[in-house]
Amino acid sequence: MRMYDIIKKKRDGGELSEEEIGFFVRGVTDGSIPDYQITALLMAIYYRGMNVRETCDLTFAVRDSGDRLDFSSIHGIRADKHSTGGVGDKTSLVVAPIVSSLGVKVAKMSGRGLGHTGGTVDKLEAIEGFRTTLSEREFIDQVNKIGMAIVGQSKEFAPADKKLYALRDVTATVDSMPLIASSIMGKKLAADDDCIVLDVKTGSGSFMKSVERSRELARLMVEIGKSAGKKMVALITDMDRPLGNAIGNATEVAEAVETLKGRGPSDLTEVCITLAAYMLSLAGKGSVEECKALAKKAIEDGSALEKLKECVRAQGGDVSVIEDPSKFKRAKFSREVKSPAAGYIGRVDTEAYGLASLALGAGRNTAEDSIDYSAGILLKKKTGDKVEREETIAVLFANDEKLFTGAEEKLLLATTIQTSPPAPEPLIYDVIE
Amino acid sequence: MRMYDIIKKKRDGGELSEEEIGFFVRGVTDGSIPDYQITALLMAIYYRGMNVRETCDLTFAVRDSGDRLDFSSIHGIRADKHSTGGVGDKTSLVVAPIVSSLGVKVAKMSGRGLGHTGGTVDKLEAIEGFRTTLSEREFIDQVNKIGMAIVGQSKEFAPADKKLYALRDVTATVDSMPLIASSIMGKKLAADDDCIVLDVKTGSGSFMKSVERSRELARLMVEIGKSAGKKMVALITDMDRPLGNAIGNATEVAEAVETLKGRGPSDLTEVCITLAAYMLSLAGKGSVEECKALAKKAIEDGSALEKLKECVRAQGGDVSVIEDPSKFKRAKFSREVKSPAAGYIGRVDTEAYGLASLALGAGRNTAEDSIDYSAGILLKKKTGDKVEREETIAVLFANDEKLFTGAEEKLLLATTIQTSPPAPEPLIYDVIE
Repeated sequence: MRMYDIIKKKRDGGELSEEEIGFFVRGVTDGSIPDYQITALLMAIYYRGMNVRETCDLTFAVRDSGDRLDFSSIHGIRADKHSTGGVGDKTSLVVAPIVSSLGVKVAKMSGRGLGHTGGTVDKLEAIEGFRTTLSEREFIDQVNKIGMAIVGQSKEFAPADKKLYALRDVTATVDSMPLIASSIMGKKLAADDDCIVLDVKTGSGSFMKSVERSRELARLMVEIGKSAGKKMVALITDMDRPLGNAIGNATEVAEAVETLKGRGPSDLTEVCITLAAYMLSLAGKGSVEECKALAKKAIEDGSALEKLKECVRAQGGDVSVIEDPSKFKRAKFSREVKSPAAGYIGRVDTEAYGLASLALGAGRNTAEDSIDYSAGILLKKKTGDKVEREETIAVLFANDEKLFTGAEEKLLLATTIQTSPPAPEPLIYDVIE
Repeated sequence: MRMYDIIKKKRDGGELSEEEIGFFVRGVTDGSIPDYQITALLMAIYYRGMNVRETCDLTFAVRDSGDRLDFSSIHGIRADKHSTGGVGDKTSLVVAPIVSSLGVKVAKMSGRGLGHTGGTVDKLEAIEGFRTTLSEREFIDQVNKIGMAIVGQSKEFAPADKKLYALRDVTATVDSMPLIASSIMGKKLAADDDCIVLDVKTGSGSFMKSVERSRELARLMVEIGKSAGKKMVALITDMDRPLGNAIGNATEVAEAVETLKGRGPSDLTEVCITLAAYMLSLAGKGSVEECKALAKKAIEDGSALEKLKECVRAQGGDVSVIEDPSKFKRAKFSREVKSPAAGYIGRVDTEAYGLASLALGAGRNTAEDSIDYSAGILLKKKTGDKVEREETIAVLFANDEKLFTGAEEKLLLATTIQTSPPAPEPLIYDVIE
């Protein structure tokens, strides 16, 4: 088999066989195919696409390019959720405790933030002492004992994807459905869950800017997951606004805790209840409506919050900040961002909000950057809200006052103030089953 | 300027600016742009194409990536021809003497053969003592003194093209009009001619298999040459059959000499007269018809043959083989290839004929291979000819008898024998001015 022939076949719109895709991914992983042939094929795939069969084969080859987890020693059904990434997305911190408090196992591997999006592992590390690295034995034992665990990726999952993504990133071939879907699902399927709920974000803060494209991606990923024998659902949820009001690490944990206490922002609460309900329903706990009621009850009776505390305690974290989030170490400085005009908050560039938080120290530009857990943004007004001139629309937090000017500018540039209220947009656009 | 943005722009069908194309070609030449970004752009160009302006800018940037010749010290008008490569194409050896015998300077840089196509430099080196490497001074002095010189490429012309071609060759991006045109013309324009006649081959022995594609390429190259201030014409000539009857090095020189003596095969003679006439006409020697008459006369009165002898003598070659080609060192062995059936020679795979000659030792698979000048093929029957069963259709020459079987098999597989004569095809399809 020759890489040249594979490139030529795809260049001319042909369908690659499982063997050809396997040859390609093995060559990417072991370095036997040179980068210049890899990127030529990626560009051909960008133009010619891949059908579902090819995309599944690509996904499975990517999954099989590295380590895989074996959850067979976890007792009971394992469910997980996966978000395509957004701004203010702290749903994992709410959903995992709800679901595991109701008897479904959540053995969660999470990522770190990069660029404008945050990552669950960073947020958890805002809790002093919280260990995001457990041995596989510790991880599985904890899930068996208390029902949930959340860690970072310690093993080398899908190294082919790492290489492919790095090359796509510098050759303008990121934005390709089969490549996106196989990248996300190749990593996700390296874990060993029974049920997966995908949270496909759509809008200005996600990398899928249109609902139609998000729906297409969701359909494809659901198809891939089912091919791999998983129970699958995907929700298309709004990322044209940040989710909730908190952006940053400690502040997002605090907001998640408030949500588990039943006092969270309504958008965040609704998305969390819905995600949890679909996870529970896939795991056989009843209809989606029944499971929504179960999830709400787990918040009302405090059992979900208790589960989060158990998890934080088990992973060595300081539980006092969960009991009272005001105990989180505060940033030295804060600044209020005032509305330049009276009116309604219209369209916001959510990605720019994420970048403003990053500029305050809450995120990283490169994988090597360190993070300031106390930095971030608390939004006082969001799309649809009425504002007066000079009314505070957001509060910025940082440990270096010099960072405020740039972040404030980004935030104001990203915010539209208009005379009439914008048409309301759905929070959950679609459910793909 | 970032290569990423250039890839993205072309990916989306945008028109690259002169600056962007210059940045790209400089980066290719100095190695500052990694191969994986180069091939991604090449694939995007494969799909999106380039308009004439972009193609001209690419050509000029390729031309300017290396050395250029300065022919300003050559007295008189300089004309050259350039063939896109075929099988049995010995036209340069005939055309250059005709044109220079009529007072137009021919300062010719030629290439070597590779794969199924031959190269003028290899053919000349079949003449013992012939020096294909001259200093620039010697080269120009010879052109001024006797009107012509033919040498190999000593300087580094268009190194960007060398790099780009090597990458296109392994990424299935050779077959792109703007990339082909800029590659050929980028090198051609590094020389310093006033008039250029392009001989764009079409058919099974050329890399342009269809007349329409050949015409398109010819139009584009004529446009590019004119943009560079050259007088340009392109002929589209047949390469669905080998040109003439001889394939190989010494045997092609012998056929060229026969043609200059007025005894050459009719197809070769006609193409040579026509190419010479267009070169002469561009150089101001009269109408094409007038120049055809001049060219024929230069053959009839022996002045063109005399010019070839002068050139061979000037470059240190053994003139006796020009005077009497039977003096060329012969191959040790020969084998007659017989027709397996009676009928007419129909379609032939001309590229396979070239590969059969290569298999006999007359060509090279890689640039490092050495060549057997006495090896080759003499065709006794060509497309349209009537043959009897067991009649000889070709004679093979080699210095190793073991090579015959493979070459004979290739030749027979590449030859169709049919019951009725094939429809005649033109020898010269079109003239693009």
